[in-house]
Amino acid sequence: MNEHHPHDISGGPVCPIPISDYPRVLLAHGGGGKLMHQLIGKMFLSLFSHPELQKQHDGAVFTPETERLAFSTDSYVIHPLFFPGGDIGSLAVHGTVNDLAMCGARPRYLSAGFILEEGLPMETLWQIVQSMHAAAQQCGVAIVTGDTKVVDRGKGDGVYINTAGIGMIEHEQEISPARVEAGDALILSGDLGRHGIAIMATREGLAFESVIESDSAPLVEPVLALFEAGVEVHCLRDLTRGGLASALVEIAESSGWNIHVEERAIPVREDVQGACEILGLDPLYIANEGRFIALVKSADAAKVLSVLQSFPVSAGATVIGEVEAKQSHRVFMTGRIGARRIVDMFSGEQLPRIC
Amino acid sequence: MNEHHPHDISGGPVCPIPISDYPRVLLAHGGGGKLMHQLIGKMFLSLFSHPELQKQHDGAVFTPETERLAFSTDSYVIHPLFFPGGDIGSLAVHGTVNDLAMCGARPRYLSAGFILEEGLPMETLWQIVQSMHAAAQQCGVAIVTGDTKVVDRGKGDGVYINTAGIGMIEHEQEISPARVEAGDALILSGDLGRHGIAIMATREGLAFESVIESDSAPLVEPVLALFEAGVEVHCLRDLTRGGLASALVEIAESSGWNIHVEERAIPVREDVQGACEILGLDPLYIANEGRFIALVKSADAAKVLSVLQSFPVSAGATVIGEVEAKQSHRVFMTGRIGARRIVDMFSGEQLPRIC
Repeated sequence: MNEHHPHDISGGPVCPIPISDYPRVLLAHGGGGKLMHQLIGKMFLSLFSHPELQKQHDGAVFTPETERLAFSTDSYVIHPLFFPGGDIGSLAVHGTVNDLAMCGARPRYLSAGFILEEGLPMETLWQIVQSMHAAAQQCGVAIVTGDTKVVDRGKGDGVYINTAGIGMIEHEQEISPARVEAGDALILSGDLGRHGIAIMATREGLAFESVIESDSAPLVEPVLALFEAGVEVHCLRDLTRGGLASALVEIAESSGWNIHVEERAIPVREDVQGACEILGLDPLYIANEGRFIALVKSADAAKVLSVLQSFPVSAGATVIGEVEAKQSHRVFMTGRIGARRIVDMFSGEQLPRIC
Repeated sequence: MNEHHPHDISGGPVCPIPISDYPRVLLAHGGGGKLMHQLIGKMFLSLFSHPELQKQHDGAVFTPETERLAFSTDSYVIHPLFFPGGDIGSLAVHGTVNDLAMCGARPRYLSAGFILEEGLPMETLWQIVQSMHAAAQQCGVAIVTGDTKVVDRGKGDGVYINTAGIGMIEHEQEISPARVEAGDALILSGDLGRHGIAIMATREGLAFESVIESDSAPLVEPVLALFEAGVEVHCLRDLTRGGLASALVEIAESSGWNIHVEERAIPVREDVQGACEILGLDPLYIANEGRFIALVKSADAAKVLSVLQSFPVSAGATVIGEVEAKQSHRVFMTGRIGARRIVDMFSGEQLPRIC
């Protein structure tokens, strides 16, 4: 197992499982007996204190507040577990919360499934659980049901986390590639590439002039503000694995419409651009964890920009392209020197275990 | 990676990812590019063909049919992946579906999160996916959203699966340890120990006179039939990790009431009992994947038995004890020779990676 590089959380609450008794996770912590109940009762329930979770039943029961609900899941296998700007715990909350936001939903409930590797330092788990808790509070979601498994040493990589989420859809709009129309404005919520570069730099031990932090953040507030402002939103997509390019190709393929992007309109920080050149990476394909695109009715583009720019997480929102009046399921980019080219998904692997 | 021992599914549909091109899972299958989209599009969507999943959006949108919903999750890390009576795919459906049933809900939607190890034979994944599909169809649930991650060779164990599920609660009863009352009848749905023994025998290469198959099965039908029959159900619990003993201790601790069990009333098959003796295991603590207990109003016990016995999966239902009129949060068992003892959770590990 690799050593972890946790953030400094000195001054935080002491690990509720006595480190002197159980410095590391044992197989028995997943075995259904006393140790598992101690881990769940003392560590998870000490923070994730929702009444439904306290029941320690086989599941949570809730009453939806809206007619339509969104449901999404992601597993998180990021390596390393801690990185500048976040860790697997906050990422596991932000990622699923953002997927719900991309469905136009207000995230409300999360499940948390932990797969722990035997030997994981208990203190590391405690830091991750605290980080999940803080992120969930920030996002207004409750962790209401969960599961803990332990796999033998060498059959995991510290910890994998799955979260599934349920959100409430408080408006009447349908958010889907099928709603994309010719003329729609393509809006990007901010600069690209920081999450992927932060992970790669940490993993490879690269030092740049300044530390590049992940953009990992919840996108709920700006997205819900769009609906509250009465904007006609056609499609939303967060730019995780595969980056902007893959998201655009997916939408073009699903909707049928061609999408055109202006390369020079895409914000990439200078230090990120420099790191990309050193690492041989293209910022268009790099994973972000706090960025999204919105395809909106063109008449609403100015209003969308003004709403998004009023939130710190999307202060850099900008129009980067539009949907063309042609249907060949493709993405085109006009480059910095003016040439127009097709944008495709990448075929090999760019950055494994980025989320 | 250990070799797999798949069931014979000859005659089934051919793996939709050409084995000659991709005999094994690559890191790029989780990278967000073309290979991941091919895997999702050709393999997962070829079977999990729900309209919401076909949208390939960040999540699924649905409209609940009832006022109250249940939400549950489990990760499955069972070793080996294939065992007599099931595999990780069917188990990942049955397990979560059963957790929803234990909340008194009709399971409707599942998410599926795959964590694949680089090098997993594509054919193995295909068999697991087919098994999930068949199990989901049998249970009347739709897999509507999912996620695929790939971890490097040696950082997984073939495949881990998380499922989260949403179920509809079609009645007014609250199912919870808090509803348990003195005098409640304790009913067990059938014989104990087959899942755990099937796994241990496969893992250790033990051969008994006959193959002991896992009891892995969905419990939805008998449970929902109880509500349809108008029975007053107080608490339900499936007997997975930790077995009958841990489930009883959990309920006694949560409800406060003492629970009394008659050991000789607990059905254990002779071959399972024999295997337990050889392996030094106690059937009370062994995981089952198709067994549950119901704590019901004593006046309804006969009706509960008659409903449960009408379904093959719970044909062996029988009363094994009752809730005593004392509140010291404990479980007592009267043994075969008449002595009364306290039943506790086990402290160490009995069977790791049983589910």
